[in-house]
Amino acid sequence: MISESFSINEKGHLTIGGADALELAAEYGTPLYVLDEEAIRRACRRYRSSLERFYGGNGRVLYASKAFCCKEIYRIVAGEGLGADVVSGGEIYTALEAGFPAGRLYFHGNNKTEDELRYAVQNGVGTIVVDNLTELRRLTGLLEETGRQQDILLRIKPGIDAHTHSFIRTGQIDSKFGFALETGEALEAVRAAAAAAPVRLKGLHCHIGSQIFDVEPFRHAAGVMADFMGEIKKETGLELETLNLGGGFGIQYVEKDDPAAYESYMEQVAAEVHSRCRRQGIPIPEVLIEPGRSIVGGAGATLYTVGALKEIPGVRTYLSVDGGMADNPRYALYGSEYEAVVCARAGEPRTETVTIAGKCCESGDLLAEGASIQACGPGDILAVLATGAYNYSMASNYNRLPRPAVVMVRGGQARLAVRRESYADLVRNDL
Amino acid sequence: MISESFSINEKGHLTIGGADALELAAEYGTPLYVLDEEAIRRACRRYRSSLERFYGGNGRVLYASKAFCCKEIYRIVAGEGLGADVVSGGEIYTALEAGFPAGRLYFHGNNKTEDELRYAVQNGVGTIVVDNLTELRRLTGLLEETGRQQDILLRIKPGIDAHTHSFIRTGQIDSKFGFALETGEALEAVRAAAAAAPVRLKGLHCHIGSQIFDVEPFRHAAGVMADFMGEIKKETGLELETLNLGGGFGIQYVEKDDPAAYESYMEQVAAEVHSRCRRQGIPIPEVLIEPGRSIVGGAGATLYTVGALKEIPGVRTYLSVDGGMADNPRYALYGSEYEAVVCARAGEPRTETVTIAGKCCESGDLLAEGASIQACGPGDILAVLATGAYNYSMASNYNRLPRPAVVMVRGGQARLAVRRESYADLVRNDL
Repeated sequence: MISESFSINEKGHLTIGGADALELAAEYGTPLYVLDEEAIRRACRRYRSSLERFYGGNGRVLYASKAFCCKEIYRIVAGEGLGADVVSGGEIYTALEAGFPAGRLYFHGNNKTEDELRYAVQNGVGTIVVDNLTELRRLTGLLEETGRQQDILLRIKPGIDAHTHSFIRTGQIDSKFGFALETGEALEAVRAAAAAAPVRLKGLHCHIGSQIFDVEPFRHAAGVMADFMGEIKKETGLELETLNLGGGFGIQYVEKDDPAAYESYMEQVAAEVHSRCRRQGIPIPEVLIEPGRSIVGGAGATLYTVGALKEIPGVRTYLSVDGGMADNPRYALYGSEYEAVVCARAGEPRTETVTIAGKCCESGDLLAEGASIQACGPGDILAVLATGAYNYSMASNYNRLPRPAVVMVRGGQARLAVRRESYADLVRNDL
Repeated sequence: MISESFSINEKGHLTIGGADALELAAEYGTPLYVLDEEAIRRACRRYRSSLERFYGGNGRVLYASKAFCCKEIYRIVAGEGLGADVVSGGEIYTALEAGFPAGRLYFHGNNKTEDELRYAVQNGVGTIVVDNLTELRRLTGLLEETGRQQDILLRIKPGIDAHTHSFIRTGQIDSKFGFALETGEALEAVRAAAAAAPVRLKGLHCHIGSQIFDVEPFRHAAGVMADFMGEIKKETGLELETLNLGGGFGIQYVEKDDPAAYESYMEQVAAEVHSRCRRQGIPIPEVLIEPGRSIVGGAGATLYTVGALKEIPGVRTYLSVDGGMADNPRYALYGSEYEAVVCARAGEPRTETVTIAGKCCESGDLLAEGASIQACGPGDILAVLATGAYNYSMASNYNRLPRPAVVMVRGGQARLAVRRESYADLVRNDL
């Protein structure tokens, strides 16, 4: 199957992290998000060992929280020695509630509010990745008020146009994120940050997009950034310590997806960083990477109960499930593709071609079109695979559907990580 | 401005339902959903008086809850004598919590779960709009268990292809909703429902899509449905009482939008219903309509605080606000257009052209592109207009952003309808 988290047991049932999907559905109900903890931990270790191997350990893996954020995931990645990339006061709050070390948090975002910046500074968030001059001024003002100092990075757009969905492409000049290199804006920002007493400019950050399959744009971006660090040294004398290369590593959602192997990506990018730094006469910086999707995406699946099947002769067959765009808006947003499996017959031939529809009152509420699955009927449990990233985190209560529970599986044993929302939760803030 | 809910006061500030937008932002914070209660009530009355005028009052207006659902809106529409269209157990729960009369609820959906059907039956939901035979069997089984009877309608797809976004087009044969006319499926469903003892088949329902500007597809659908009622009488002898024509009436989001006047829509559709029924030799049925967007959409605005402005020479200017796709995913989902106003200078010329970006870490997180607004800078309050529908109801906690508060304004006085989510709310179900 598309990820090592999924297998088939002796009963022919789908397993997730070794747990029988039918047993999970029976115990916790559907829809249900299930995550394979061992796969998450393995991915964390794989990234850490790459940093050891290619940078002598002078680096840090930051989990990109926005892919999947709850208290339990912070405990897991903290246990694996990772830092975390956070993008809001809410993510910082969640991390702190889980006991995540504040010093290992990196706070991103194109428009952090003043309240969020204050909250971050007061709670000792290790590094703030400054996006623009308005923010730099706002942060400097806050620090002056409180007499604190704060480590920062500057977000740079390296001018790379990665080949991915335009919604998740961020490195090109036409982006709401960061300082542009081409226009000289980035160098000006470096001078401004260096001159702002209460901030300590540690280095630079870039992020070229999401779900990228080729190594080349990453290699290219790393080279551009290393060159820029050389230019900074030449122009200002500053020798920056840190280079944060962001995330964006693609994962396999369906058979035809062919992402680069992470090890190969890490190796080629490291070679580029080393050679460019040598050429620029600067030391190899501490290198940060920010994987999110590639840590949790393939480790997750969503279980649904099949409801109505609607065969429209000569058109298509709609198979409706008890969730949809409220728990997984990615098809509606990006036309994302997913693989689905009938859990009770996971090993049997895929004889049916169906459109998997959600239960929302909206035609766009689909999870997959032309999906190839085993024969099934009302009451069967269907798994949609590789939903670990950007499903729970983007879930809504559209159509007033309570958000599903999240279950973490380790060693074949399941435990609840996030409880299912109740109807009462839906109105808890209503007057 | 694009709706009568918005005006400009003597200070030159935007007003919503007569309340000064700057005062609302100062009192309740941003982002903030604001709704003009009088406009909502006027829309309810307009629809009711059309039913009086064109059908002699033999009809009912059902508010389509999914457009905007919270306890307060149910109180308002109940007070105006409307029924409500609900699409999930969560909507039923919210309505009942608000004291909405269960008998005036109509339960829709392509895949109601068994739990939801049971919940609806046990709580006396007046009418269930049955979508498919699996559901009819399930409902019949439940009713037999409990010895109850239940009024139902059958959802029919009339084979109309309305000109709107494919995500929100539902009347054509390739749809997950309802029974197809062309294939004979609909007539079979009528026979099956008539034969199922514990259900009382009251009539038919159709819904051809959303945000439709022309009267013609509505008129066409009404004619097709009336003809089908005639065919049913001929084929089975059954004289159905009720014809639910659904919703889908478009509203004006931006200047160039030109929806049909509701009165004219109602008049033309009624003429069609009357003439077809006469031709078919059947009595004029009770007519139901289900407006949602056209009741709340134009009555709402979202207030944001402006953060960073990023001018990219020769490309565009990004203006970032403190909300985005988490509170309004419609641009990301459908490319929907909105008009925006700088609240403090609402009457001044619109000299700037900007892309309004949200604060989520995602390039697709935009609210408008090429928006024409007044000059503004960090700290200014920006209003995005006509956000009353499908904003709060589709909102997520993406990037762990708490959902905004909802404020209802009446007679210039504001009151909280839904409290702002807190950080603690975000983790309340986390273990």
